Amino acid sequence: MAGAMTVDNVYAALEDLRARRPLVHNITNYVAMTVSANVLLALGASPAMVHAVEEVEDFVGISDALVVNIGTLSPQWVEAMRAAVARANALGKPWVLDPVGCGATAYRTQVAVELAGLKPSVIRGNASEVMSLAGQVGAGGKGVDSTAPAEYATSAAVALAQRTGSVVAITGETDYVSDGTTLIAVHSGHALMPLSTALGCSLSAVSAAFTAVRPPREAAVAALAVFGAAGGIAAERCRGPGHLPAEICDALHAMDRAMLAAHARLSE
Amino acid sequence: MAGAMTVDNVYAALEDLRARRPLVHNITNYVAMTVSANVLLALGASPAMVHAVEEVEDFVGISDALVVNIGTLSPQWVEAMRAAVARANALGKPWVLDPVGCGATAYRTQVAVELAGLKPSVIRGNASEVMSLAGQVGAGGKGVDSTAPAEYATSAAVALAQRTGSVVAITGETDYVSDGTTLIAVHSGHALMPLSTALGCSLSAVSAAFTAVRPPREAAVAALAVFGAAGGIAAERCRGPGHLPAEICDALHAMDRAMLAAHARLSE
Amino acid sequence: MAGAMTVDNVYAALEDLRARRPLVHNITNYVAMTVSANVLLALGASPAMVHAVEEVEDFVGISDALVVNIGTLSPQWVEAMRAAVARANALGKPWVLDPVGCGATAYRTQVAVELAGLKPSVIRGNASEVMSLAGQVGAGGKGVDSTAPAEYATSAAVALAQRTGSVVAITGETDYVSDGTTLIAVHSGHALMPLSTALGCSLSAVSAAFTAVRPPREAAVAALAVFGAAGGIAAERCRGPGHLPAEICDALHAMDRAMLAAHARLSE
Repeated sequence: MAGAMTVDNVYAALEDLRARRPLVHNITNYVAMTVSANVLLALGASPAMVHAVEEVEDFVGISDALVVNIGTLSPQWVEAMRAAVARANALGKPWVLDPVGCGATAYRTQVAVELAGLKPSVIRGNASEVMSLAGQVGAGGKGVDSTAPAEYATSAAVALAQRTGSVVAITGETDYVSDGTTLIAVHSGHALMPLSTALGCSLSAVSAAFTAVRPPREAAVAALAVFGAAGGIAAERCRGPGHLPAEICDALHAMDRAMLAAHARLSE
Repeated sequence: MAGAMTVDNVYAALEDLRARRPLVHNITNYVAMTVSANVLLALGASPAMVHAVEEVEDFVGISDALVVNIGTLSPQWVEAMRAAVARANALGKPWVLDPVGCGATAYRTQVAVELAGLKPSVIRGNASEVMSLAGQVGAGGKGVDSTAPAEYATSAAVALAQRTGSVVAITGETDYVSDGTTLIAVHSGHALMPLSTALGCSLSAVSAAFTAVRPPREAAVAALAVFGAAGGIAAERCRGPGHLPAEICDALHAMDRAMLAAHARLSE
Repeated sequence: MAGAMTVDNVYAALEDLRARRPLVHNITNYVAMTVSANVLLALGASPAMVHAVEEVEDFVGISDALVVNIGTLSPQWVEAMRAAVARANALGKPWVLDPVGCGATAYRTQVAVELAGLKPSVIRGNASEVMSLAGQVGAGGKGVDSTAPAEYATSAAVALAQRTGSVVAITGETDYVSDGTTLIAVHSGHALMPLSTALGCSLSAVSAAFTAVRPPREAAVAALAVFGAAGGIAAERCRGPGHLPAEICDALHAMDRAMLAAHARLSE
């Protein structure tokens, strides 16, 4: 049953994450690997990037959560994603799907749809990706960037959550999380963030880290609030997008209750 | 017919690029992916890294320009490069070749020569790469770094441009662009730049972005001038090479006519 | 015969490295590629990332040293590692093994053990990896992170060095180097370093660069001292882990005898 989420709930989840230091198994794209690893370390998690079919199942076995990101997919990697997801599901371990660029090509869309049907705990994407995944034809998107504001995708998110049983998070100027029943808005972040690559991918990895210590809806909301707050704090220290990833890591590393409360707001 | 290029021409091209926000399809090396994506975003373009044979042709179809960089090549990736290039040529879309490390191994040289024969709009390399590609035996090079100043490669650039029909850009302390008839020198950049990886690769990606809004020669000159100016501005803010990529992104993001005029000079 | 190592020995090795500017061939993981390249450039070496079976042997032929890092291994890459190592051994060129995550999965452990049997000049790992490689069952480790302090692994390092004929370097709060007879402790570095990804991998690449100008034991000690000193200097300029890689590059680029002496201490 979905209760109200507050900044205090989110901060408690962050404290639990830091105490647990979850091992997060990333099968992610080449562009996002370094940034995602640094973001997870700064957050308080322990990241690993492991993709060989020969070992993904074993690695799921020792991990606390999995993130599957199709940004630079190819058939061999998709095979590893399937094996990892099957093992995660068999072991009851949470996993997050990031359907990067869903809608851009037929191959990418087909893989995203297949993976979304395998019961991810959380699906995290931009508006164009979520609309495409929900079957809204002509959802737009420009390669891996969204051409629509997140608000356009909220009904798609609710529908997708109902159909898949996953919690769906859409990120944009305002972020939204739906479990098919409720819709929570997270107000945080900064306009510079889309100008630095792989921050959305890193947020998916952060969402996976939180699923190690909270159920999917709470995990997604906590991830959006904490990462968005870090983005807002970081952007204030930047004059452009260049230092944003490094500043986000510093903000995540230093994040305390006051910083979180000042830079994230939740509403239903 | 090639007219004179001025800083005003270059700045107009940058303004057009920002207005168009071209989708640039990158098939590039693992080292350069994150830096190239951030540079393209800061410039005002929309990058995507897509390499699966299953989708490269579709992705070329929605892109405005393509960059093919052989830095960490392997047969599967070369197959994708061929498919993407064939589609780009069939659709009349511009593409840029970065023949990283041409001359270092027989395999690398053979692939670079093959791709250079497929009518790239622009070929962008260092002196050793361009001399090797032009067939000058013993052109040197140390792995992926050049051992010769750009001046040594200007005749090779002219010859290569004549043979391939491509515009050839050589980068070094001074940069040169030739279409086989003219030779333009671009004075910009900074001595710290070769000490930060993937900046040459990022410049190739920037060249591709400019081909979406200008013919190849103008695009190459604009890319060298804008990126070199950003490098010069960035280096002034650095005490070493560490923060250079981030500072280049900030400089690209902030680039205006005065910054460009103060940090880039063109001559024929 | 192993003589005493001093900061003066280490600085002389760094000066020789900068004069030689060795070409370092990296077969490394996707997460570490960009950081490793930047660290090698800042140090004064010339890095290249080359992994295709079609060219690794040729590339070893023109390189001064090789580093093999299994962080994101897969069968195709392991095949290239084997070919490169065989060529390095045939040519008498030094190479460094980084057994990332050894112990985490059966596949990873098996590959690490196989490679460790191929006479690397230096093996560089964390305590859990070295203990696992030395055959100590239940050595722990959390994915690619160590769960044990380096001190727990010193006897494993000595035993592994005796069995393989390699110099073994363990990194942790204090670092240790053993050639099977001597054990040298290097006191440097900073507690922030484990919170920034790929610094251990970069240190392995730095070790390879030093093997181009020094025998394995001296090379490993020099690498730990120089990189650790750079980490200590860098951390003083940081308020979190975000800017650490960039600051380490700046510190490596600027490293002089006084900086080294103030931030690294050797003991036997």
